[in-house]
Amino acid sequence: MRTESDSLGSLNIPKVAYYGIHTQRALHNFPISSQATHPELIRAFLEIKQAAAQTNATAGSLDRSVAKHIVSATKTLLSSPLDMSMFPISDIQGGAGTSTNMNVNEVIANVALEQTGRERGDYKYINPNDHVNMGQSTNDTYPSSGKIALLRLLDPLFESLTALIDSLGNKADEFSSTYKMGRTQLQDAVPTTLGNSFHAWLKPLRRDVERLNAAREPLYMLNMGGSAVGSGINVSYHYQVHIVPNLAGITKLPLTQAHDLFDATQNLDGFVALSGALKTLAMNLSKIANDLRLLSSGPRSGLLEINLPAKQAGSSIMPGKVNPVIPEVVNQVAFEMFGFDATITTAAEAGQLELNAFEPIVFRSLFAGIEHLTSAMDTLRLNAIDGINSNKSRLAQDIDLSVSFATAMTPIIGYQEAAKMAKESIKTGKSLRQIAQTRNCFTPDQLEHIFRIEDIVINARTPEHGLVLRAPKK
Amino acid sequence: MRTESDSLGSLNIPKVAYYGIHTQRALHNFPISSQATHPELIRAFLEIKQAAAQTNATAGSLDRSVAKHIVSATKTLLSSPLDMSMFPISDIQGGAGTSTNMNVNEVIANVALEQTGRERGDYKYINPNDHVNMGQSTNDTYPSSGKIALLRLLDPLFESLTALIDSLGNKADEFSSTYKMGRTQLQDAVPTTLGNSFHAWLKPLRRDVERLNAAREPLYMLNMGGSAVGSGINVSYHYQVHIVPNLAGITKLPLTQAHDLFDATQNLDGFVALSGALKTLAMNLSKIANDLRLLSSGPRSGLLEINLPAKQAGSSIMPGKVNPVIPEVVNQVAFEMFGFDATITTAAEAGQLELNAFEPIVFRSLFAGIEHLTSAMDTLRLNAIDGINSNKSRLAQDIDLSVSFATAMTPIIGYQEAAKMAKESIKTGKSLRQIAQTRNCFTPDQLEHIFRIEDIVINARTPEHGLVLRAPKK
Amino acid sequence: MRTESDSLGSLNIPKVAYYGIHTQRALHNFPISSQATHPELIRAFLEIKQAAAQTNATAGSLDRSVAKHIVSATKTLLSSPLDMSMFPISDIQGGAGTSTNMNVNEVIANVALEQTGRERGDYKYINPNDHVNMGQSTNDTYPSSGKIALLRLLDPLFESLTALIDSLGNKADEFSSTYKMGRTQLQDAVPTTLGNSFHAWLKPLRRDVERLNAAREPLYMLNMGGSAVGSGINVSYHYQVHIVPNLAGITKLPLTQAHDLFDATQNLDGFVALSGALKTLAMNLSKIANDLRLLSSGPRSGLLEINLPAKQAGSSIMPGKVNPVIPEVVNQVAFEMFGFDATITTAAEAGQLELNAFEPIVFRSLFAGIEHLTSAMDTLRLNAIDGINSNKSRLAQDIDLSVSFATAMTPIIGYQEAAKMAKESIKTGKSLRQIAQTRNCFTPDQLEHIFRIEDIVINARTPEHGLVLRAPKK
Amino acid sequence: MRTESDSLGSLNIPKVAYYGIHTQRALHNFPISSQATHPELIRAFLEIKQAAAQTNATAGSLDRSVAKHIVSATKTLLSSPLDMSMFPISDIQGGAGTSTNMNVNEVIANVALEQTGRERGDYKYINPNDHVNMGQSTNDTYPSSGKIALLRLLDPLFESLTALIDSLGNKADEFSSTYKMGRTQLQDAVPTTLGNSFHAWLKPLRRDVERLNAAREPLYMLNMGGSAVGSGINVSYHYQVHIVPNLAGITKLPLTQAHDLFDATQNLDGFVALSGALKTLAMNLSKIANDLRLLSSGPRSGLLEINLPAKQAGSSIMPGKVNPVIPEVVNQVAFEMFGFDATITTAAEAGQLELNAFEPIVFRSLFAGIEHLTSAMDTLRLNAIDGINSNKSRLAQDIDLSVSFATAMTPIIGYQEAAKMAKESIKTGKSLRQIAQTRNCFTPDQLEHIFRIEDIVINARTPEHGLVLRAPKK
Repeated sequence: MRTESDSLGSLNIPKVAYYGIHTQRALHNFPISSQATHPELIRAFLEIKQAAAQTNATAGSLDRSVAKHIVSATKTLLSSPLDMSMFPISDIQGGAGTSTNMNVNEVIANVALEQTGRERGDYKYINPNDHVNMGQSTNDTYPSSGKIALLRLLDPLFESLTALIDSLGNKADEFSSTYKMGRTQLQDAVPTTLGNSFHAWLKPLRRDVERLNAAREPLYMLNMGGSAVGSGINVSYHYQVHIVPNLAGITKLPLTQAHDLFDATQNLDGFVALSGALKTLAMNLSKIANDLRLLSSGPRSGLLEINLPAKQAGSSIMPGKVNPVIPEVVNQVAFEMFGFDATITTAAEAGQLELNAFEPIVFRSLFAGIEHLTSAMDTLRLNAIDGINSNKSRLAQDIDLSVSFATAMTPIIGYQEAAKMAKESIKTGKSLRQIAQTRNCFTPDQLEHIFRIEDIVINARTPEHGLVLRAPKK
Repeated sequence: MRTESDSLGSLNIPKVAYYGIHTQRALHNFPISSQATHPELIRAFLEIKQAAAQTNATAGSLDRSVAKHIVSATKTLLSSPLDMSMFPISDIQGGAGTSTNMNVNEVIANVALEQTGRERGDYKYINPNDHVNMGQSTNDTYPSSGKIALLRLLDPLFESLTALIDSLGNKADEFSSTYKMGRTQLQDAVPTTLGNSFHAWLKPLRRDVERLNAAREPLYMLNMGGSAVGSGINVSYHYQVHIVPNLAGITKLPLTQAHDLFDATQNLDGFVALSGALKTLAMNLSKIANDLRLLSSGPRSGLLEINLPAKQAGSSIMPGKVNPVIPEVVNQVAFEMFGFDATITTAAEAGQLELNAFEPIVFRSLFAGIEHLTSAMDTLRLNAIDGINSNKSRLAQDIDLSVSFATAMTPIIGYQEAAKMAKESIKTGKSLRQIAQTRNCFTPDQLEHIFRIEDIVINARTPEHGLVLRAPKK
Repeated sequence: MRTESDSLGSLNIPKVAYYGIHTQRALHNFPISSQATHPELIRAFLEIKQAAAQTNATAGSLDRSVAKHIVSATKTLLSSPLDMSMFPISDIQGGAGTSTNMNVNEVIANVALEQTGRERGDYKYINPNDHVNMGQSTNDTYPSSGKIALLRLLDPLFESLTALIDSLGNKADEFSSTYKMGRTQLQDAVPTTLGNSFHAWLKPLRRDVERLNAAREPLYMLNMGGSAVGSGINVSYHYQVHIVPNLAGITKLPLTQAHDLFDATQNLDGFVALSGALKTLAMNLSKIANDLRLLSSGPRSGLLEINLPAKQAGSSIMPGKVNPVIPEVVNQVAFEMFGFDATITTAAEAGQLELNAFEPIVFRSLFAGIEHLTSAMDTLRLNAIDGINSNKSRLAQDIDLSVSFATAMTPIIGYQEAAKMAKESIKTGKSLRQIAQTRNCFTPDQLEHIFRIEDIVINARTPEHGLVLRAPKK
Repeated sequence: MRTESDSLGSLNIPKVAYYGIHTQRALHNFPISSQATHPELIRAFLEIKQAAAQTNATAGSLDRSVAKHIVSATKTLLSSPLDMSMFPISDIQGGAGTSTNMNVNEVIANVALEQTGRERGDYKYINPNDHVNMGQSTNDTYPSSGKIALLRLLDPLFESLTALIDSLGNKADEFSSTYKMGRTQLQDAVPTTLGNSFHAWLKPLRRDVERLNAAREPLYMLNMGGSAVGSGINVSYHYQVHIVPNLAGITKLPLTQAHDLFDATQNLDGFVALSGALKTLAMNLSKIANDLRLLSSGPRSGLLEINLPAKQAGSSIMPGKVNPVIPEVVNQVAFEMFGFDATITTAAEAGQLELNAFEPIVFRSLFAGIEHLTSAMDTLRLNAIDGINSNKSRLAQDIDLSVSFATAMTPIIGYQEAAKMAKESIKTGKSLRQIAQTRNCFTPDQLEHIFRIEDIVINARTPEHGLVLRAPKK
C-alpha cells in the first residue's frame, strides 16, 4: 500500500496500482456496472494527453523534460493493448467523466514516474493535475475523447453496412427474374420479383449510409481548448491555437476546433442526432429481419418462399427444426438500439447550463449500439443473406393460384366486376383464368395480357436512374 | 338516406353526405380518435386526384369530360377551407389509409356528380374507384399525400425556428458583456457572460435547421406511379412518366419520382429520420427551457439571474407569484415529441413486406409534433426570449463572492494549494481575493490578472469563425 | 368587450365570454394544441368547486349566499354537456394547470353572477379567486380533477377489456378441438389447438385487469386540502377534514385523502405506474393483433388458418382484397400508447421540488391512451374476434404434412435419428408417417401413439386450475 | 481438438472445452456482445437440469445411473463460482435461448462423462439432448431459468430499496423542524420543512416496494412441463406433475406451475410489467437525484440549502469544487432503465404465435437494470443521503425574505391586495412584514399569525395515518 492525498484527505492505494487516489475514490463511489470504460475512450484520452503535453511544452508552459516523460508514457501505453486493470472505473459514473480523466492522468503520471526511476505516487515531479492535465478540463477532454472513440468505432460499422448493401445487391441481381406474389397488409396483392424485395431492403440502408455520414461530421469538431466551460480559462494562447491541429496529427483524424466552445461543451445534440441515425438503421435492419423470418417460415405451414442457410439445430426438443436465428439476433440488437436512443435522448435533455454531466451513459450507449449493430450486420450478411436461396416452385404456384390478376382486369371491366370474379375464385377454388375464360368479357389478347406476368411486374432498377418504366403499349 | 353497395353488400348513407359506403364502413370500423384526418393531408389528396385525372385524360385512359368534372370538383373543394364534415374518419385507422383515399374519391365523385346535375351516389357516370382513383392505389397516394402535407407543415416550423434563432442572437449581443458565473454540474465553476449562454442555446438550433433540411429532402420524392406495390400495375406509360411532374405543377413543389418504387412504397425510414430530427430539436428546446427556468428561479430563494416577462398571474393561491409558464409549455411539447418518436419508430419497424400499414399513426404523430413544436417556438420567442432582462447586480455579486478565481491560480501555485484557498474561502466566508492578498504567494500583477474577469472570460463569437481566442499575453 | 384586471394589468374580454382575464392570457400564451382540455377534467373541476364552496360555507369561511350561488352555478354547468367554448384553453399548457383552474373559477363566478342578475366580470360579489378558489390551489385541484377524470374514463376501459376477454373465451371454447400446428420462431413446431391460441391471448388480458386494478387504486387518493405545496396553507381545519368526504359524496366515488399531502402534491409515480399498466395492455393487444394478421394471411399465399370478418373493401385498386384492418388499427393504438408512456415518464421525471409542473401533458396522454385503447378493444371484439372462423381443412392438412411428430419419436429413437427422418421428409416430400413405416424402428403401437394427435396435444384449461395434465400412460 | 456432429454436420471443438458443437455454432453465429450470459441464469439452468434428471429418473424415463451422474455434475458446477469460460455465448443471441440451453446441456454431459472416466464428447453414454434435456425444451427451461435468476437478483434490490427508505426516513425525522421555502415551478412558494422534503422523497419509494412486489409475484410461476409450446409433448405424466415441486425444493423458492402452459410459454407481459415497475422506481430515484442536485447547488451562486458529503475532488481544473457525483450517477442509471423499458416492451411485442424468440434481450436488459438500480441505491444512500446536512442560516434567511406570507394574507384582504404587497416587496426589497405593518390593514394578532411559520407549515406525518391536520383555530 502507498498513501495518496487530495483536497478531501488521504487514502491507501494498492502498491501495484498505476492509478491513484481519484480513481480509488471513484471505485468506491461508482460500483455500478461490471463493465469498465471502453478501451477506445481510454486510448483517445491518451492521445489527447500526449498532444496536450507537446503543446504545453511548445507554449513554454510545461517543463520540456516533464512533457517528454508524459509523451513517452502515453506512447508506451498506446503501443500495446491496454491493460484494463489500470482503468477499472465503471463506465457508468457521476462527475461528467472526471474520474476517467483523473484515472488517465494518474496512470500516465505513474508510468512516467516509473520510466524515470521514481516511485509511483511521487507526484512532485510529474503531477496528474498540474502537468498531465495542464490546460485541460474533464469538460473538454472527456467529450473529445468520446468523439474520437466514436469515429474509430464507426469505421467498422460503415464497412459492415456497405458489405451488407453489396450482399443484398448481389441477391437482388440473382433473383431479378424470380417472380413472386407481393403482399400488402400480409394479404396477397400483385406480383413482384424476389429481386425487387432484396432491392427494397437495400435502398434504405443506402440512405442510412448518407444519414450516418451526416451524423458523423460534427464528431470531428472538438471543444479542446475550452477547458472548464468553454472560456478557455488557464489555457495559453499557443495551446488554444495548436492543441486541435496537434491532436489531429497524432490521431490521424481531420479534427477541427468548434467555433463556439461554450456550445460545444454543454450541448449533446450531435450525439442525439447520431443516436437517431443509428436507431433508423436499426429500424431498417429489424424490418429486413422480420421479412426474412416471414418469407422463410415453414417448412410446411408457412410462406417458405426463401430458405435461410441452416446455422444450427433449431431446437433442443424438436428434431429437424431449423430456425431463423440470425435474423432473430438482428431484431434484438435493433430493439436494444431503440432503448439506447431513449436513454441518450433523456440524458442529453438533462444537461444543465454550462455542462451536461451525463455524458458517460451517452457514450456507453452509443459505443454498445455501434458495436452491436456492426456485429449484427456482419452475421446477417455472412450467416444469412449470402446463403439465401428461393423456392421457385412454391413461388410460381402462388402466382398461378392468385387472384391478383383481377387488378389487371379493372381497366377493362371495372373494379366491381373484377371484385366479383376474385371472390368467386376464392370461394370456388377455381383459378381466376378459368373463371375469366367462361365469362366472355375479354378478348383473347386482353386475356393473354392480363395473365402475362411480365406485363404486370416491372423491375426496380435501371442503369440510369433505377426505375424501369413499363414500355408503352402499342 | 340513399343506398350504396360495394363488394361486401349495401349500406344506407345519410342523404346529406358527400362521402359514400367506404367512408361509412370506416366510421363503423374506426371509432378511435375524436380527431379527423389532418386537413393538409386531405388537401394534398385532392391535388393528387386532380393531377391523376388530368394525366389519365391526356394518356387517353380517362374520358375527357369525366376528367374535367373531377378536376373541377377538386378545384372547388380546394378553393376554400375544407368542410371537415365531408372527411369525418378518425386519423387513426386500419387499412393503411385506404379509408381516407376512398373518402376523398367518394367526395370528389359526388361533388362532381352534383356539379353535373346528377344525384350523389350515381357512380355510373363518375365512379370513385374506376375514374377518380384511376391508375392509383392507396399505397402510392396515401404516402404521397402525407409527404406533401409534411412539406407544407414544415414551412412554418422553419420560419419559427429561424425567428427563434434570431431572437436568441439579439439577446446574445445584448448580453455580450454581462458577466455571470458559469456552472457545471449545477456547481459554481468559472465566469462566462450571459451572452455566451444565449449563444450556446442558439447554436444547436442552427444545427437543427441543417438536420431538418436534410430530413426534409426525401419528402420531395414520391412513389406515385407505383400503384399497389411499386410495380405500377394498371398504370399507363404516359401516366407513369407524367404524374409526378404534373403534380409538381399543381402543388408548386419540386416533387420527383422515387427511383425504386417498391422501396418507396414499403419503407418508412425517411419518416423515422424526420422524427429523429424533430426529437433532437425538441431536446434542444427542452434544454433551453430548463436553463431558463433555472436562471429565473426565485425571486428570493433562487438563482434569479434573469427575469422572464410576466405572462400571467402565477398562482391561484399565492399572490405575486409569477411562474415560468412559457418554458414549461415548451418542455411539455418536447416530452410529447419524445413519445411521438417512440410511436413512429415502432410503427415503422412493424411494416411487413411490400407495405407498411401503419402510416396513419406515423402521419398523425408527425403532424402533431411539427405543429406543436412550431407553436411552442413561437410562444417561447414572443412571450419569453424577446422580453428577458438580466439582474446585473445579482450577477456581479455572484462573481465577486465566487471561488472560481482559484482556477486561475493553479498555473502559479498548483491545483492542491489553490484548492486549499478555495476551501478556506467557503468555510470562512472571506472572499478569495482577501485570502490571496494575505498569503504573499502572488505578485501584484498576478493578483490583478487572476481577478480581472476580462482576462478569464472570452466571448464565443467573432465575425470570422465564431471563436475569439484569447489575445497572447505579453 | 368588457375589461378585466389582474396583478399584471388589464385586458379586453369578449362580452359574450364566460371566462375572464386569466383565460384570456392563457389563450395568448398557449396556442399549442387545437384540442381543448378534456371535458371530464372540467367536470371534475366543477365538482371540486362545488364541494369546496359547500365545505367553506359550513366552516364559516365563505358567505353562505355566495356559496349557494357557486354551488348553483356548478350544478347548472354539470347538468348538461359542457359548452366547450367556455373552456377554450389548449390542453397542453404551462403553469401546472393554473390556467384551467382559473378558467373554471372564472366561468363559475360569471355564471353565478349572471344567475343573480349581475354583470359578468363584476367580481366584487363573487370572486374567482377569493370565493370560488377559496382554500384551494391549482396544485391540489388540478391533480385531483385529473384523478377523478381518469377514474371515470377507466370504467369503460374495464368494461371493454372484460368484454374482450369474454369474447376470446367463447372462441377458445368454440375451437377447443380444432387442431392446428403450433409455431415457434415462425417455424412449424408441434401441434396445438386453435382454442389454446385464443386462450393464450386471453390470459395476459386477465392479468391486465389485475394490473390496471392495482394501478387504479392510488387514483382514489387525493391531495385536496394540501393547497399550494401540501402544507394546507389558507385551509381551515374544518375544510381540511371535510373536503374529501364531501367531494366523495358529490362524485359518488370512494375518494380518500392522501396521508402525506406534500408527497401527493409533487410526485407523479402513480401516473407513471398507470401508464406502465396501460402500455402492458397495449403490448398484449398488439401481440394479439399481430397473430391475427399472421394467421389470417392469404388468401392463397399465406397461412390462412383463420378468417377475419370482412369489414371493408380492402383496396382501392385490388378487387376482392380484404385486409385485416381491425387488427391494424389496434396495432397503431398500441404504438401510440408506447409513445404516451415515454412522454409520461419523462414528464414525471422532470418534476422539481414541491411540484411537477408538467401534469397537463401527463393527463392529455393518459386520457387519449385510455380512450383509444377502449375504442380499439371494442372494435377488435365486435368487428374481428366475434366473427372469426377457422379453415379446418387447411389446419388438418398442415398437421398431416408436418414433421412435428418427429418430436414424439425422440423418446424411442433419440434426437439424432428423429432429426434424420424429419430432414428426409422435408427433402423428399414424403410424409413422416410413410418414412417411419418403412424404417421398422417402431412397434405398431408406438407408431399409432406417435401420430395420434390427441396424445400429443393437451388443452390449456380445466375447471379446477386451468391445466390439463396428460393422463398417465399405462 | 475433438470432432462433434449434429444434424447439420461436424465441427472441431477445442479439446479443453466442456461445451460442444451447439455452443461452437452459437459462438460463430452470435459474436454480438462481449458480455456472456448472466451467471445467475446459468445457475438456474443447472438447477433445472438437476431437477429434471431426478424427476425423469423417478418417472422411470431416465436410467438411474445416468440421472445420478447428471445430478452429480450439476452439483459440482453449482458448488463454486461458475467458470464462465464454459459458458461463452453472447447474452444477445438468436434462437430464443436454445444456444444457452444446449451449452448447459453439453457442459453437464461432459462434466458427467469426465466424472465417470469417459472422454468429453462421448455422448452415447450421457447425451446432452436425449438425457440432460429429457422432457424439456428451450422454450420452458429458458424462461424458467430467467425467472429464477430475476428472483435472485431482486432480493438485493429490495434490500437496497428498503435501506434507502429507512435512510430517508431518518433524515425526515432529523429535519422535521428545519423550516425552508417550498418551491413550485422553481419559484418561491410557501414554507415547508426539510423533513417534509425527505418524507416526500421516501413515500413513492414505499409505493415502489408494493409495485415491485406485485410485479415479482408472477415470476414464481413457471412453464416447466410445457416443453416446446406448452402442450407438454414428450413429457411424462410423472414429470409434468413433479418437476416444479422438485425444482422448488432444489432452489428453495416457492415456485408453482402456470395454469395455462401455452400462455406461459408465449407471453412476456410479466416481464414488461416488471420493467414498468423498475422504470417507475428509476423515475422516482431520478426525481430525488434532481432535487438533491438543485438543493445542494452552490456554493455561492446556488440554492445551497443542503450539503451533500464531498465524495471526490469535483474537477480536474477547478480547485475546491465538489460536485454532486452520486446523484449524477443515479440519474444515469435511471435514464438507462428508461431505455431498457423501451427495449423490453418492443421485444415483448414482437413475440409471434406460440413463442417469443426475443427473451435473451429482455433478460439482459432486466438483469442489468436490476443490478444497476441496486448499486445506484446503495451508493445514493451510503455516499449521499446518510451524510446530508442542512444550511440552517440560509434556510431561515430565505423564509424571512420571502413574500410567501402574502398567501396567508388573502383570507383577510383578498388575493388582489395581497398580490400588490408582494409585488411591492419584490420591487423595493423591503420585507413583506415591513410593508404590512405600514398598511394598517391587519390587527396585531393577525399580523402575528400571518408571519408565524409554525401556523403555516404542517408536517407530513402522524403516528396514526401520516397526516397532521392543523389544529382548529379558536
